[in-house]
Amino acid sequence: MDLVAGVDIGGTKTKIGLVGQNGECHEQLFFRTQEFESFDDFLVRIKDGIDELKAKIKSPVNLIGCGIGAPNASSRNGTIENAANLKWKGSVPLLEKLKQRIDLPMRIMNDASAAALGEMLFGNAKGMNDFIVITLGTGFGAGIVANGKLIEGYDGFAGELGHIDMTLGDGRLTGLGIRGGLEAYVSATGLKRTITHMQSKYMDESRFRNIAYNDLHGEDITKAAEEGDPIALKAFDFTAKTMALALANFTAFTQPEAFFLMGGLVNTGKWLMEPLQTYFEEYLLEVYKGKVKILTSGMEGKTAAICGAAALIWEERR
Amino acid sequence: MDLVAGVDIGGTKTKIGLVGQNGECHEQLFFRTQEFESFDDFLVRIKDGIDELKAKIKSPVNLIGCGIGAPNASSRNGTIENAANLKWKGSVPLLEKLKQRIDLPMRIMNDASAAALGEMLFGNAKGMNDFIVITLGTGFGAGIVANGKLIEGYDGFAGELGHIDMTLGDGRLTGLGIRGGLEAYVSATGLKRTITHMQSKYMDESRFRNIAYNDLHGEDITKAAEEGDPIALKAFDFTAKTMALALANFTAFTQPEAFFLMGGLVNTGKWLMEPLQTYFEEYLLEVYKGKVKILTSGMEGKTAAICGAAALIWEERR
Repeated sequence: MDLVAGVDIGGTKTKIGLVGQNGECHEQLFFRTQEFESFDDFLVRIKDGIDELKAKIKSPVNLIGCGIGAPNASSRNGTIENAANLKWKGSVPLLEKLKQRIDLPMRIMNDASAAALGEMLFGNAKGMNDFIVITLGTGFGAGIVANGKLIEGYDGFAGELGHIDMTLGDGRLTGLGIRGGLEAYVSATGLKRTITHMQSKYMDESRFRNIAYNDLHGEDITKAAEEGDPIALKAFDFTAKTMALALANFTAFTQPEAFFLMGGLVNTGKWLMEPLQTYFEEYLLEVYKGKVKILTSGMEGKTAAICGAAALIWEERR
Repeated sequence: MDLVAGVDIGGTKTKIGLVGQNGECHEQLFFRTQEFESFDDFLVRIKDGIDELKAKIKSPVNLIGCGIGAPNASSRNGTIENAANLKWKGSVPLLEKLKQRIDLPMRIMNDASAAALGEMLFGNAKGMNDFIVITLGTGFGAGIVANGKLIEGYDGFAGELGHIDMTLGDGRLTGLGIRGGLEAYVSATGLKRTITHMQSKYMDESRFRNIAYNDLHGEDITKAAEEGDPIALKAFDFTAKTMALALANFTAFTQPEAFFLMGGLVNTGKWLMEPLQTYFEEYLLEVYKGKVKILTSGMEGKTAAICGAAALIWEERR
């Protein structure tokens, strides 16, 4: 049986799985990324992980490659550059180092771009040539496909849409120092910042006036909205509006057939998604109106990131 | 001799030329687009124009196709949609109608996208796979190339970067009703609007306090800057800053190797281009700094648009 090892390196967990050609994940495991002081120990753990999974499968396994998704990864250089939430700083030559330990065809990519390939091969974007996958977690990630191919960029760093300025350089700072950067508004963190902002802007009573910023959690904001908390409602409305403006902008760029959303913020349900649809149609340039779908990812769930990473190899087999 | 007929349909002039495989324009002519009340008469004039040019060339000519650049053209549908500065309104089926009169392989595209293909085949982007051409005229046009291919979009309307909102939906209106749209700031018209804005924002004396908006001309603004007019200097600085933010945003999208600028505003020389370079590097996300070039087009001059249109056909021969 031909399988691909999919490795998703996250700030918290690193997940490994063996993935078949239709995106079925046969075996998987995970460990804490931060567990390893030395980068070499971390690489050894990945190699051992793949071997462990292979041993678990009864039928003979032919590993045809290893795909890796990681934050701030450059597909062209095979490096991870200055990842904010990884322990190893500077430019980390992940591909080169891993190739010394694992003898397989290998490909590395930004995690959101890997998610886009996963969506194209195994998820809801099957058969589409022009679409954008957006991951709404702590930050805002994106993978862009145009003409049926992932946009990697000159240096492998395309799709950093969380760091697009939306405010003529006059807005909130992102973690990477971009003023007005989208992810300072549209992300789990952005929503928290907006809750705080709305308390400064308006005088409404709100449960959040008794909760410190560091104690704020996404689920509480959804719950407060359900109870009609005016600050929560204003925050969701503003987030939906800002995201709609961003998606309208992205449409003017590559004119995708659809956006696919995934990640924690999508699960806030109607409070974000419903006004998002309405504002989006309103903000679109006339020539795009009624033509661009906002959909949820078909890759939700625990194996989404693993399958995205594996898609890097499976894509080359098509 | 194999030649391609390149047709550039502009709001003022329609230009036709016969273009060889290296972008050399052998013969050309133009006529006023607005001259023709009926769309059919306009099409006849294009056909006759191509025949006239062909007759002028002494050696035997083999016309291998006809490429057409036009504002608001959809490459996928072969139509021109609601072009603001053309007489024919709604959705105009240009490709279909022209094919009834001219028996040649034919391709139509947005004028800025055609300019990008021209730059790739004949200009300064030769050998590049990831770049963006920006046309700075009355409006702001763009043609985006990624992975060596022009981004057309699902419906053929990608690259409408002049209508990207830069102000969280709170800024100047573009001609197409987009709030905060880039071309309301960065274009010949945008610069005029900024001259007016700076007069409202500051109290500086300026020659422009004696000139009505409708009497403002681009050359006067350049001249005023040369003479140290504080409103002109502030206007150029703001335009450069806004454009730098926009190009930094575009970089986060497709990570081009270079931007190529063309059009009237580029000729304002150091007043725009020098601060643009400085602000651009400042605004770039760390991972892009020092990697993205801002260059001028290699296609400037009278035949640039014709050669861009012809590139639509020559590209398919490569």
